[in-house]
Amino acid sequence: MNFIQFHKELFRINSKFSEYAANHAEAQEFVFEGPGLFQVDLEKYAFLVYEGVVLKYHISPLGKMLYDNFYTRNSFIGLLPNIFYFDDYFEYTTLGNIRGLKIPLSALETYPDDLKNELFLRNIQRELFWKDSAARMLGLNLKEKIYYILSIIHSFRGINPWDNTYSIPKYITHEILANVANVSRTRVSYVMSELQKENVITYSKEGKIVILDIDFLHDSCGY
Amino acid sequence: MNFIQFHKELFRINSKFSEYAANHAEAQEFVFEGPGLFQVDLEKYAFLVYEGVVLKYHISPLGKMLYDNFYTRNSFIGLLPNIFYFDDYFEYTTLGNIRGLKIPLSALETYPDDLKNELFLRNIQRELFWKDSAARMLGLNLKEKIYYILSIIHSFRGINPWDNTYSIPKYITHEILANVANVSRTRVSYVMSELQKENVITYSKEGKIVILDIDFLHDSCGY
Repeated sequence: MNFIQFHKELFRINSKFSEYAANHAEAQEFVFEGPGLFQVDLEKYAFLVYEGVVLKYHISPLGKMLYDNFYTRNSFIGLLPNIFYFDDYFEYTTLGNIRGLKIPLSALETYPDDLKNELFLRNIQRELFWKDSAARMLGLNLKEKIYYILSIIHSFRGINPWDNTYSIPKYITHEILANVANVSRTRVSYVMSELQKENVITYSKEGKIVILDIDFLHDSCGY
Repeated sequence: MNFIQFHKELFRINSKFSEYAANHAEAQEFVFEGPGLFQVDLEKYAFLVYEGVVLKYHISPLGKMLYDNFYTRNSFIGLLPNIFYFDDYFEYTTLGNIRGLKIPLSALETYPDDLKNELFLRNIQRELFWKDSAARMLGLNLKEKIYYILSIIHSFRGINPWDNTYSIPKYITHEILANVANVSRTRVSYVMSELQKENVITYSKEGKIVILDIDFLHDSCGY
């Protein structure tokens, strides 16, 4: 299945779930003031993000951090326990404030089977898919990583009808790109300003990244 | 959840499923003569491996191969469709003969919900877990990769009561190590013969790798 189709399906399921959960007292809205460590009890709760970005890292016993996944609007943190090696663990970091729905896993048990099963399956599939992209990135150089991330994000976005360009959601900042690509913010800004000079990207009045030449990014991301 | 516990649970579920499926006419034993490309229709069938090893690779449009996952006794190939970017695809390669059970997904639909749901969930979780290990390996050097793989495999094995050593299953050959670590067989053999000289590993009469000093491997795998 193509990842665009898949994400449409995922969006549908998570929205359906969110509607259902909002009508059940056990699920409660939460607000988390970031940036900071998102320390939550994933043995007991699942979190559906409405707003903000959470990054997940896989930490080795020697403290090596590996970017693993991200969560943003309409995606789930938790649902199924992480499986870890003896001394590995996973860490969740927010890049700003997070708003969403906190659902006790015990309440989820009582939800209709169809809804629940689809929810679990699709959300782990999402996790699988984005892990693939994280692994793929490890073999790319700095520039390629940034091109690759922009290419992927671009695919999700509708075209702007007024000028045939694609804009990137506002929450995708240089800081996010740096965190996901695991490079410094300075290097990201350097690559981005080069791309701007070469008319591959520009910025909208609201400060959003706008992609002018997706073919360049796609053809140069070296994967 | 710890990965050893998890795999016990997975083994239980897949065995239960295999018993159930063996009593249903739609599931049929298959034999695939390898080594070769395991070209099967994963839109229509799932494959439960009884014997042999299948490796899964993620192939980019430029032809870059990324080791993604492996399947051996009592693990599932398929069940849920792979999700891919526009020009990516997944390839399955066997390292020898494969024997197992081929189950039409349409037949699976008719199986009891409990069995089916658990089966799907746990097998994707397995896929997630091993993807993490594949990603982790990309940051290691050649030696560390081999130490890391041996450390993981070792954790699955019971200790040999007669001499307190751990032996590695016979199907884990230098060729498999080379494929999983994505290095040449010659380099694997070189590292392994160094390990043998330093009394970290040895070989049993049947040619199995036996680990004598797991602490060395574990402490030196640099992850």
